[in-house]
Amino acid sequence: MRHEFTPTKFYYTFGPHQPALRVRPSDTIVTQTLDSSSRGPDGQEVPQEMQHQSPGTTVYAANPQTGPFYVEGAGVGDMLAVHIEEITPNRSWAESRFVPGFGVFAPEDRACGPTGLSDPLPERSFIWELDLERQVGRLELPQSTLAQIEISLHPFFGCIGTAPRFGEVISSITPAEHGGNMDCVDTGIGATVYLPVFVEGAYLMFGDVHAAQGDGESCGVGLETPARVQVTVDLIRGKAIHWPRIEDETHIMVAGSARPLIDAYRIAHVELIRWLAADYGFDQWEAMQVVSQVGTARVGNVVDPKYTVVAKFPKAYLLG
Amino acid sequence: MRHEFTPTKFYYTFGPHQPALRVRPSDTIVTQTLDSSSRGPDGQEVPQEMQHQSPGTTVYAANPQTGPFYVEGAGVGDMLAVHIEEITPNRSWAESRFVPGFGVFAPEDRACGPTGLSDPLPERSFIWELDLERQVGRLELPQSTLAQIEISLHPFFGCIGTAPRFGEVISSITPAEHGGNMDCVDTGIGATVYLPVFVEGAYLMFGDVHAAQGDGESCGVGLETPARVQVTVDLIRGKAIHWPRIEDETHIMVAGSARPLIDAYRIAHVELIRWLAADYGFDQWEAMQVVSQVGTARVGNVVDPKYTVVAKFPKAYLLG
Amino acid sequence: MRHEFTPTKFYYTFGPHQPALRVRPSDTIVTQTLDSSSRGPDGQEVPQEMQHQSPGTTVYAANPQTGPFYVEGAGVGDMLAVHIEEITPNRSWAESRFVPGFGVFAPEDRACGPTGLSDPLPERSFIWELDLERQVGRLELPQSTLAQIEISLHPFFGCIGTAPRFGEVISSITPAEHGGNMDCVDTGIGATVYLPVFVEGAYLMFGDVHAAQGDGESCGVGLETPARVQVTVDLIRGKAIHWPRIEDETHIMVAGSARPLIDAYRIAHVELIRWLAADYGFDQWEAMQVVSQVGTARVGNVVDPKYTVVAKFPKAYLLG
Amino acid sequence: MRHEFTPTKFYYTFGPHQPALRVRPSDTIVTQTLDSSSRGPDGQEVPQEMQHQSPGTTVYAANPQTGPFYVEGAGVGDMLAVHIEEITPNRSWAESRFVPGFGVFAPEDRACGPTGLSDPLPERSFIWELDLERQVGRLELPQSTLAQIEISLHPFFGCIGTAPRFGEVISSITPAEHGGNMDCVDTGIGATVYLPVFVEGAYLMFGDVHAAQGDGESCGVGLETPARVQVTVDLIRGKAIHWPRIEDETHIMVAGSARPLIDAYRIAHVELIRWLAADYGFDQWEAMQVVSQVGTARVGNVVDPKYTVVAKFPKAYLLG
Repeated sequence: MRHEFTPTKFYYTFGPHQPALRVRPSDTIVTQTLDSSSRGPDGQEVPQEMQHQSPGTTVYAANPQTGPFYVEGAGVGDMLAVHIEEITPNRSWAESRFVPGFGVFAPEDRACGPTGLSDPLPERSFIWELDLERQVGRLELPQSTLAQIEISLHPFFGCIGTAPRFGEVISSITPAEHGGNMDCVDTGIGATVYLPVFVEGAYLMFGDVHAAQGDGESCGVGLETPARVQVTVDLIRGKAIHWPRIEDETHIMVAGSARPLIDAYRIAHVELIRWLAADYGFDQWEAMQVVSQVGTARVGNVVDPKYTVVAKFPKAYLLG
Repeated sequence: MRHEFTPTKFYYTFGPHQPALRVRPSDTIVTQTLDSSSRGPDGQEVPQEMQHQSPGTTVYAANPQTGPFYVEGAGVGDMLAVHIEEITPNRSWAESRFVPGFGVFAPEDRACGPTGLSDPLPERSFIWELDLERQVGRLELPQSTLAQIEISLHPFFGCIGTAPRFGEVISSITPAEHGGNMDCVDTGIGATVYLPVFVEGAYLMFGDVHAAQGDGESCGVGLETPARVQVTVDLIRGKAIHWPRIEDETHIMVAGSARPLIDAYRIAHVELIRWLAADYGFDQWEAMQVVSQVGTARVGNVVDPKYTVVAKFPKAYLLG
Repeated sequence: MRHEFTPTKFYYTFGPHQPALRVRPSDTIVTQTLDSSSRGPDGQEVPQEMQHQSPGTTVYAANPQTGPFYVEGAGVGDMLAVHIEEITPNRSWAESRFVPGFGVFAPEDRACGPTGLSDPLPERSFIWELDLERQVGRLELPQSTLAQIEISLHPFFGCIGTAPRFGEVISSITPAEHGGNMDCVDTGIGATVYLPVFVEGAYLMFGDVHAAQGDGESCGVGLETPARVQVTVDLIRGKAIHWPRIEDETHIMVAGSARPLIDAYRIAHVELIRWLAADYGFDQWEAMQVVSQVGTARVGNVVDPKYTVVAKFPKAYLLG
Repeated sequence: MRHEFTPTKFYYTFGPHQPALRVRPSDTIVTQTLDSSSRGPDGQEVPQEMQHQSPGTTVYAANPQTGPFYVEGAGVGDMLAVHIEEITPNRSWAESRFVPGFGVFAPEDRACGPTGLSDPLPERSFIWELDLERQVGRLELPQSTLAQIEISLHPFFGCIGTAPRFGEVISSITPAEHGGNMDCVDTGIGATVYLPVFVEGAYLMFGDVHAAQGDGESCGVGLETPARVQVTVDLIRGKAIHWPRIEDETHIMVAGSARPLIDAYRIAHVELIRWLAADYGFDQWEAMQVVSQVGTARVGNVVDPKYTVVAKFPKAYLLG
């Protein structure tokens, strides 16, 4: 079944909120996401009453999520498979920004509280023109010899996730076991994202589309854009996973999120090795050897309250 | 006003749950806390229906909290002052444990997900006999030449906090801006804990009393005990703080919680320096110099999902 | 001028040792490297007297270096450009290993001292058969359903560097400002490695060829092999750099090495942005924005005493 | 035997340099140390020819060391016991400073390379007046309401160590297994410092006396002063230790140095537990339990290229 869903409320936390729509396994959802500043295709912020803000969150009024989608029959210990079929930016521009106290070069890290005493980096806005036909983004660089840059777009969900475990409700700025703000470029068109079901109904949410982004999202902000999106949701029963997994044409992947960065690296790789052992016929130690020689690692984000590393294994080396 | 409050429900997350009791500023609360394994003075786990567990949390059924106490008139941007007047362990023994995958020496860190592939450390239970009259704890050491050890008790709240900011709901295993599982020995009898009000009503909760604990709580578990406790709650209006503060007879302190550990150190010290500048007549840079020469730092915990460092400044150097 | 150089002594530290050969800018060196266990093409360890071991280093008798090559005219503040023209493994097999206490999954980290109390991971040896004609490596996987794996070779220097700054002498297990054991796959055939000259004469050394390796070298050991190698050394005068830079057909790169991992990430990216600003006409803040959107990051190693991250910028976006 | 030794050359690295003096086990050395800026009692920098600087080290011309003292008979695998008998500042003032890019609050960390793009903290000098009779230091605070502060002195060696293992030569800015710039307040008068012998002769060096310092040396610089010092050196044969140990009237301690900070914590505590098991009759797991409840941890420095944590165990709980 195909649902055309127009959101009327956006959430800034992942949790078991009032479901926006109930879907069944194998249903398709076609809907829209706002940009990270709660703006739609017309560049205007949606009205306050559509923003489910919490007290004291003004500074973090970012990353509005579409959903939650309650998946009928999804129980604790099941796994969602979310097939990403379409992510189409629907505005002629995207914005990246330097937010004081945010980003990997910032002396004080607002995400987790000030860690220094120095002046923040300058605040700046960068408006990228999106040429949706040619699938490129263009930025003027008035201060540089290279007066302009044009880059390919590769739109993806900055955020996608389910309701967290242990009864927690987690800001849409933060990635964790449930997914959330992983900001990894691998959750784009054609990918399947596997998410754990920690709460009955799963409570799938997504948003924060980036039209493009480098590894690590170093400045803290990608090419933020609203989008028209389409996903199909499958349910795999009795398949408990600990961290989000991703699969595309060439790789199977695990996204681990933690601070410090090395723990995100470790988590993603440990889970990848265990996955190879559990589902693909590998002995655990042989999997560890092979991953050490052919695995690749992608830094998702190094700017959010938890950092994300994606451990990747080439499907060419999987059986069958 | 003095409230004798007998809890009938315990929570395992900090958040704006159904208030257990409404209190006014300057009210005193006398009540009880369970040990971290949800057991009371009789050593029995309280009935399931008294435990507000969330789906999938069995593994973490730890750190039950008493409360929440709704503080009338407490608004966003105010500050609570919680005077700790009594913490009396009310059982003749306390338990410490080695929990596989938990603690600073553990190869895989269950708190944030497995980060290694090796076998966990052995599971062990250590029952400390509490001599409440002499205020000492005693442990048999059958495998050691020193056949027994006797240590002084210094009971304190492992957990104390308010409802988190940004609409988050956070496990009672985790410390953060709202307080929570800081596991720092400074939140004991005679101390005043200052907590931020992020949600109207503050939603004060506490629990997880340790009869004693070393710096860092290295193995992951202190001398866990139920207790009879008494606190008086004051409200300071229009005093927004970012992190919990503590004051005792000799020091003013800030408790910063983060991973990595150095960020907990930085957060606590930056906030301490800013406090000295804002409230005690220090120039910021002179405060930084003086803190560098007379400040002390105490490692609260290095085992929870966020670590806690307490930055301490001697009151002898404060004016007036 | 072309030097055919046969080494008679191998060093296990980077420093201003007795020069093995003096070369001039634009000279070419053709020579050999041992594998990381001090073995040559015949699989035998070279005699003790050829190994310049230091007292107490038996456990670390790894990563023998060829050189040092004294570059005539190289002064403090100059930069070497080392063009890597050939790296040909010259043995029919390569070895990877699990070394107890080493590697990203190891509970205790021998590289910097034990950080845990648990049993180490098992010790294992993996002999990869090298088919040098087809440029593939083959490993039997007797315990896995996939009974064998065959991977493409991409030989590179695990170690390449100069004498360190500040008069330090640094183990060939450790990467730092001078280069050293970066273990990043980008220092392969066709690449130019730019190295700082911290000591008059530069004292170039290299070794530790890996026939292949995944990102991060997770288990701690790549496909270790001796090799026949050829490099041409150029000298750029008055060009002081802080960290090794790399250039290949498609990217300019900086290799930052530090613990924690995030600092390696930061160092590499800060230096990359400054390089773009200094040499390629970018305004610093515009460079930061562009790197955030098109930069990629490669994890070199997460196993050595310092970790290495390579920040990469596509040459397509450079002028001229 | 008692040696009155007047140094004529100062080193800025720990390593097997030309011995300044040869001593025998149980000999006493009375000598002098400079302040960290190579200045003596008269406030003047000693002549260049007395400073054994290395090329490119101008920025780091800090922490001159007195020595090395070659200990006759000291072999690899032995342990030095250095009894600190006197540390007397011999100048009427000490200096602390804010050095741009240095210190725990600095946005860019010069010690290991710039990790940010922001402006450094301001450069400042603070001259503390030393009243050696009353053993206090006094600082004017012209910008603060508290116009002046007076603190107790507790002079200690910022640096003390032997020649490093693996043939390394290490800057006197950096602490590690050999000791070095640990900057921990516990290496003061009355303490015994146990140091590993990694190189025949041990090559003991010390310097960088601080008249006082807070935990962590947050701004990066203590009360730097030259001093007259006296130590007695004992040799314990066949006692291989991995990290410096310290003993005073009340505690046995281990100083672990590493980045990240948590690894310094882990190293110090693992080594302390192993020490309790090896020398004091503790079962390892019982030692881990007891350390978790009565151990304390002191943060030595959080500003040098490696951070230092001191794990402390009360001697009251040791047998005999």
